[in-house]
Amino acid sequence: MTHIDISPDSEFGIDNLPYGVFSTAGTDRRVGIRYGDNVVDLAVALDDDVFAEASLNSFMAQGRTRWVEVRDAITDAITGDSVPAHAVHPIDTVTMHMPFDVADYVDFYASEHHASNLGRLFRPDSEPLMPNWKHLPVGYHGRSGTVVVSGTDITRPNGQRKAPDEASPTFGPSTRLDIEAEMGFVVGVPSDAPITPDRFAEHVFGAVIVNDWSARDIQAWEYVPLGPNLGKSFATSISPWVVPLLALEAARVSTPVQDPEPLEYLRETQSWALDIDLTVTWNGYDVARPPYREMYWSPAQMLAHETVNGATSRTGDLFASGTISGPEKHQRGAFIELTWGGREPVSLGDETRTFLEDGDDVVIAASAPGPNGPRIGFGDVRGRIVPA
Amino acid sequence: MTHIDISPDSEFGIDNLPYGVFSTAGTDRRVGIRYGDNVVDLAVALDDDVFAEASLNSFMAQGRTRWVEVRDAITDAITGDSVPAHAVHPIDTVTMHMPFDVADYVDFYASEHHASNLGRLFRPDSEPLMPNWKHLPVGYHGRSGTVVVSGTDITRPNGQRKAPDEASPTFGPSTRLDIEAEMGFVVGVPSDAPITPDRFAEHVFGAVIVNDWSARDIQAWEYVPLGPNLGKSFATSISPWVVPLLALEAARVSTPVQDPEPLEYLRETQSWALDIDLTVTWNGYDVARPPYREMYWSPAQMLAHETVNGATSRTGDLFASGTISGPEKHQRGAFIELTWGGREPVSLGDETRTFLEDGDDVVIAASAPGPNGPRIGFGDVRGRIVPA
Repeated sequence: MTHIDISPDSEFGIDNLPYGVFSTAGTDRRVGIRYGDNVVDLAVALDDDVFAEASLNSFMAQGRTRWVEVRDAITDAITGDSVPAHAVHPIDTVTMHMPFDVADYVDFYASEHHASNLGRLFRPDSEPLMPNWKHLPVGYHGRSGTVVVSGTDITRPNGQRKAPDEASPTFGPSTRLDIEAEMGFVVGVPSDAPITPDRFAEHVFGAVIVNDWSARDIQAWEYVPLGPNLGKSFATSISPWVVPLLALEAARVSTPVQDPEPLEYLRETQSWALDIDLTVTWNGYDVARPPYREMYWSPAQMLAHETVNGATSRTGDLFASGTISGPEKHQRGAFIELTWGGREPVSLGDETRTFLEDGDDVVIAASAPGPNGPRIGFGDVRGRIVPA
Repeated sequence: MTHIDISPDSEFGIDNLPYGVFSTAGTDRRVGIRYGDNVVDLAVALDDDVFAEASLNSFMAQGRTRWVEVRDAITDAITGDSVPAHAVHPIDTVTMHMPFDVADYVDFYASEHHASNLGRLFRPDSEPLMPNWKHLPVGYHGRSGTVVVSGTDITRPNGQRKAPDEASPTFGPSTRLDIEAEMGFVVGVPSDAPITPDRFAEHVFGAVIVNDWSARDIQAWEYVPLGPNLGKSFATSISPWVVPLLALEAARVSTPVQDPEPLEYLRETQSWALDIDLTVTWNGYDVARPPYREMYWSPAQMLAHETVNGATSRTGDLFASGTISGPEKHQRGAFIELTWGGREPVSLGDETRTFLEDGDDVVIAASAPGPNGPRIGFGDVRGRIVPA
């Protein structure tokens, strides 16, 4: 048994305890929680085989009562100095893996600022916001097989594109490779019935940071009328630590006023809007600070919408917010918005950028208020661009 | 050992031998092949545990050499009367299940007639075919968790819709519930690299009939700009028998002339267009005969497109053709086309229909030419509408 020493202002303190899947030189993939700069092996610390699995899915499926029990148990073990020493691994000695098996992946479009900016850029001759946008959280299904964990290199996608002034399309590596800084939510408890906004926390286990890499040239040519496909399907990165909703109570804020009032099935009695601050770092330069609290639609509304038609939910369903952009320019979570379609490059020290170049790396980090001073860290999601 | 007697003109003769997952009163789910009106238990007949699994995935992942070996072995066993009698179950004594675990589900839009008809109906003031349509197989990701086997009841979806002349949207059961008669293809061998058209048969195991149920009122309101979501995600039905590509050599025909010539990555040296005839039966009345051979894009082109950006493929990936509609009215594979947006009802005996009513049932059957006289049957995909 051991005392685990951490910094008092760590974003991975006793109020956070996010879950991930790790391996060491001597162990297979298994479930751990992060505490300070350590990973605690839960299969050892709690003597429970559900944590010896290579994904969180089985544990997530056990439900909220069990999530609370396990959180209480590991909190007691840490604060009571009763974690076995051999269950504790310094973070720099482990490899992090995909934390869960993704069932379906749905990406929304829940930021009014992002949707308006993209509308202006993609459809300059029309109203930026579509007539349906304030009535329902617009979303689409993405490719679950290409959701990858932070740190995975991102190969520049090839594809077909045609600029408006070109006579016919060409094929080649994307020249407008972009990011989308988002938050994602993972379903633990499956459902055969619609999940109303007020039952969100019975079904959703936790949250991750998402980078929905986007090839804007491919997307612009392909997306009418069935939506984005190849412009997005090559890769979506997620952070390795799943912060449980149980750690986010102090981060809950009110959903912005929604006008017109949504239809009844989308109304929350207690909002699941969250005060999460993101930072986007491009080759080491801080380029954006997207504020999740500004999102028009809450995650509970997104899940309620996605299931209201009777679509079943499975453990591992991942749904993401869409790009998080606030009202200010430095709050925009995609480079197409930050550089206004590539016309206003951003400075990275001595260099400038519009879209991603080979070798560039992007880190998106996030944190939220905690109940007792230290913030609740989500860690970060990283990716580096390698040539096509 | 037993001789299995079948009709000489059965669509499930020795040249077909499709794979499915079945159970009986006395057995768990396992893999069988259909021969005439019988299901042959492959785990027993071939003494191989890969067929004792509840899905085809493990077998499909083994690759084409093995697919040929198993096909040869079971053909020899049947023609040599060496199948053990207890491996043979009359078809009416078994229950059929989902034949494989669906990884990602992508639905295309590969019929020029369907895309043009839908364009006229959804966007009457624009060119029916989008500028990209003849340059790439347009497609989108659907919800893999709601792909269900034939025979599963389809609950009418609730959702949000707004007619153009209404001031604001309303919520309730879809009033324009429709079908889409399609063919689907399942990936057996995964790939980390693009699958060129000429490598189609190394990766794709076989084909099924697909009914992509569609709520047109929900779809019309939601689909701009990110494509269909709730209007489709409630259910997609597939036929229980996966016809291997190995049984479809005699059904191969040339892809229709493509003008403009597609970019190189989409060119086939040997076409995978297929001469499959579908029939759509509504409450027992034959209402449409969609011809798969009329599709503009072949399945090999669809898979080449879907993977050309570097998106990986997994065993169980399902991709479907989109609605199959020919040039003639009675060849249209969706009711929105058959009834021209509901304005031209079809007669079902003494009744008429525009869209689906509660209690209606739809059966889509399909077959293709075989090498020796009898046709290759896909069986059918059935569904009955139950109230919201």
